[in-house]
Amino acid sequence: MDITVLTGGVGGARFLLGVKAFLGWDPTGAAPTDGPDRITAVVNTADDLRLHGLQICPDLDSCMYTLGGGADVARGWGRTDETWAVSAELAAYDAEAPWFSLGDKDIATHLVRTRMLDAGYPLSAVTEALCARWQPGVRLLPMSDDRVETHVVVPDPQAGPTPVDGAVDDGATGSDTVQPGERPLVALHFQEWWIRYRAGLPALSITPIGAAEATAGPGVVEAITGADVVLIAPSNPVVSVGPILAVPAVAAALRETTAPVVAVSPIIGGKPVRGHADACLAAIGVESSAEGVGRHYGARSDGGLLDAFLVAEQDIAEMPGVRVGTAPLLMTDPAATAAMVRACLDLVDVRV
Amino acid sequence: MDITVLTGGVGGARFLLGVKAFLGWDPTGAAPTDGPDRITAVVNTADDLRLHGLQICPDLDSCMYTLGGGADVARGWGRTDETWAVSAELAAYDAEAPWFSLGDKDIATHLVRTRMLDAGYPLSAVTEALCARWQPGVRLLPMSDDRVETHVVVPDPQAGPTPVDGAVDDGATGSDTVQPGERPLVALHFQEWWIRYRAGLPALSITPIGAAEATAGPGVVEAITGADVVLIAPSNPVVSVGPILAVPAVAAALRETTAPVVAVSPIIGGKPVRGHADACLAAIGVESSAEGVGRHYGARSDGGLLDAFLVAEQDIAEMPGVRVGTAPLLMTDPAATAAMVRACLDLVDVRV
Repeated sequence: MDITVLTGGVGGARFLLGVKAFLGWDPTGAAPTDGPDRITAVVNTADDLRLHGLQICPDLDSCMYTLGGGADVARGWGRTDETWAVSAELAAYDAEAPWFSLGDKDIATHLVRTRMLDAGYPLSAVTEALCARWQPGVRLLPMSDDRVETHVVVPDPQAGPTPVDGAVDDGATGSDTVQPGERPLVALHFQEWWIRYRAGLPALSITPIGAAEATAGPGVVEAITGADVVLIAPSNPVVSVGPILAVPAVAAALRETTAPVVAVSPIIGGKPVRGHADACLAAIGVESSAEGVGRHYGARSDGGLLDAFLVAEQDIAEMPGVRVGTAPLLMTDPAATAAMVRACLDLVDVRV
Repeated sequence: MDITVLTGGVGGARFLLGVKAFLGWDPTGAAPTDGPDRITAVVNTADDLRLHGLQICPDLDSCMYTLGGGADVARGWGRTDETWAVSAELAAYDAEAPWFSLGDKDIATHLVRTRMLDAGYPLSAVTEALCARWQPGVRLLPMSDDRVETHVVVPDPQAGPTPVDGAVDDGATGSDTVQPGERPLVALHFQEWWIRYRAGLPALSITPIGAAEATAGPGVVEAITGADVVLIAPSNPVVSVGPILAVPAVAAALRETTAPVVAVSPIIGGKPVRGHADACLAAIGVESSAEGVGRHYGARSDGGLLDAFLVAEQDIAEMPGVRVGTAPLLMTDPAATAAMVRACLDLVDVRV
């Protein structure tokens, strides 16, 4: 059986542990070499950023480390037994972005990746090379080898207090075109909004810049059209799954595939399981509820994405044309998550 | 008084500690802000290399760390309290060059430097920015902002055993044009020859590639022509001082300056103080002795470099036209080194 999963970072990685467990694989081990099953993850790359000259792919790395047994599960991100010597030194040089944590072990990954990218290898080839070490068991495919970057438009947090009526403007603040009660707008990289400002600045828009012009990464379209089932991980619908769906060839493949498409709700009891998803949904005018997310994805029979939708037992989603099922959705361990995967497949009558 | 020093890395940095001590400065502190004295170091950059995408300047960093109080004096190179997490991870990825040690703290320096270089800043500006943190007290000027790289031509160590007469050549070794008893030649980066092979491969030539076309770095010519005295540190004459002298504008400035030029012998008792200098001297056909080095630099009155030459008490150097003095030359501490500096200045009657 070929299972293809559209996924973001930490939450998606945890979901993939459950897919491996569902197939009877070691969740943090390599795939069996002789089995009939294959798992492919199409991973969001719109969170990627270049910092200190290093190309960082948070979602790909979260998947790679988690599935390869190298992730710090307790902290929730990054490497086990991580150290921070390089970051402390960068701070001593007053180098930028202390808001983004870069562990020493993690930096080695970024050094290898950046060097290969600068040498001309596409991100998909670089990811495959890095995975040769980690043996994540899941084929990790970047959604695209092209640059896509989610930008969030917010009131400029650096603009200072809004000038009041009658205040003398000396021109130094550059805010003389701003009306009272307004601030100039600025587009932040998603990571800066998410981590530096903890999604606390009201987002006027969230846009995966470049996605509309991006081509799907090698193998992505085939992984979707050739799958027995396509699962959408309970990742952030706006900033993790959204950019993947915004790549035209991916959207087309999802329309064309004969495989059923099943999403797992990232909302449990009306609240996102992991932080700030509600701020993202609000920015695109979607209610922060299981039904809100489900209707955002839409029914495939009505031009949308989904054949089925799995929500938490305490949630309700009325979705005409979509088979809605319920199950416990807390991914407490790979076995619990495997039960979610089984529930997804049962909804669309796919059997191993 | 303006003292300008031509220098390489570790040994040169130690010599500069002594120049600071000679002026009554804290050897690892900043320069006094109100004093009449200034020390400028023109630093070799031909050892520089790019590894894992990082631009590494071993001599500039040795000077910066040593003079700024951040060097591991016991180990002889690199940073105090260094850790090696990134390198261990690079090795886990089978990334290249485990023969070149890159500490975590050191890597932060290279990240800041590489980012600034890639953004278009010249090495001289980058060095000044890095020194804003370290406050080495000495103005550290790269000999050139242009790329200069010392290459060492050796018999190819990867070529395997030489085919013997009558041996069947299957073509796989690529050595079928090699005569019995010969190996193909290969040019190694200086660092690979020096560190990976510990200068153990016989060098047929050692050449600072690019030096002849390089322009002197900003301030270098003025530092030489405007100095009260120019000192040549007891650094390796071939691979540390040699590349500096190979930059045409530097050689011209040394000819033109009214300042006396004094070198300190890197050979004590017929042996180099630091490793492998004899292998370098042999490659350019210079005897590994104080007199050999002195004659290699040459008398200024005879078209060479030196007005004076300071050798160890147990060495003899006959150099017509050059004032030769003797002193203890082991740089055991800044005070001992300061006495060497005083002896240099006494030789040419320069007084503070």
